[in-house]
Amino acid sequence: MANTNNDINSVFIGNKPFMKYVTAVILKLNKGDVVIKARGKWITRAVDVAEVIKNDFIKDTEVTDVKIGSEEIKINENKKKRLSTIDLILSKKDK
Amino acid sequence: MANTNNDINSVFIGNKPFMKYVTAVILKLNKGDVVIKARGKWITRAVDVAEVIKNDFIKDTEVTDVKIGSEEIKINENKKKRLSTIDLILSKKDK
Repeated sequence: MANTNNDINSVFIGNKPFMKYVTAVILKLNKGDVVIKARGKWITRAVDVAEVIKNDFIKDTEVTDVKIGSEEIKINENKKKRLSTIDLILSKKDK
Repeated sequence: MANTNNDINSVFIGNKPFMKYVTAVILKLNKGDVVIKARGKWITRAVDVAEVIKNDFIKDTEVTDVKIGSEEIKINENKKKRLSTIDLILSKKDK
């Protein structure tokens, strides 16, 4: 199945080494805005990735939008769990 | 020292029981917008508090703004650590 445009510019944060995510976002920033996505306990890490890029790597980027939400995860037949989600939109500033 | 207006309407998320924060925010919502603040590992919890209030307790609230940032914490004489921060602004919708 072909990637949607949304997939191409998203980075989903998980348990890989921190700098892998920083590098992935920086590479994608050359092509346009990037959406840093995370859910549950990875939300803090998503904010860290955005802050490190903005402060240490590419100073002319900014977080243009932050969205929070919830997702329902089915644990088993009878049990559901709600997980918080975050979307951070990172853009290069106009020069 | 007198509280600033900002202090009165802020709830700072930490390691107290989760529902304490939910209750504190709900009470303050009667007086106006509330800023849910957290840093470091508590960021995920701040998002959870906002989502639980919005989805389970007061359906006519919405997250009107989310700000992320960084703070420098001095660990000792020579060492500093950067901590990410989040501010979530929760408002009651106009009826």
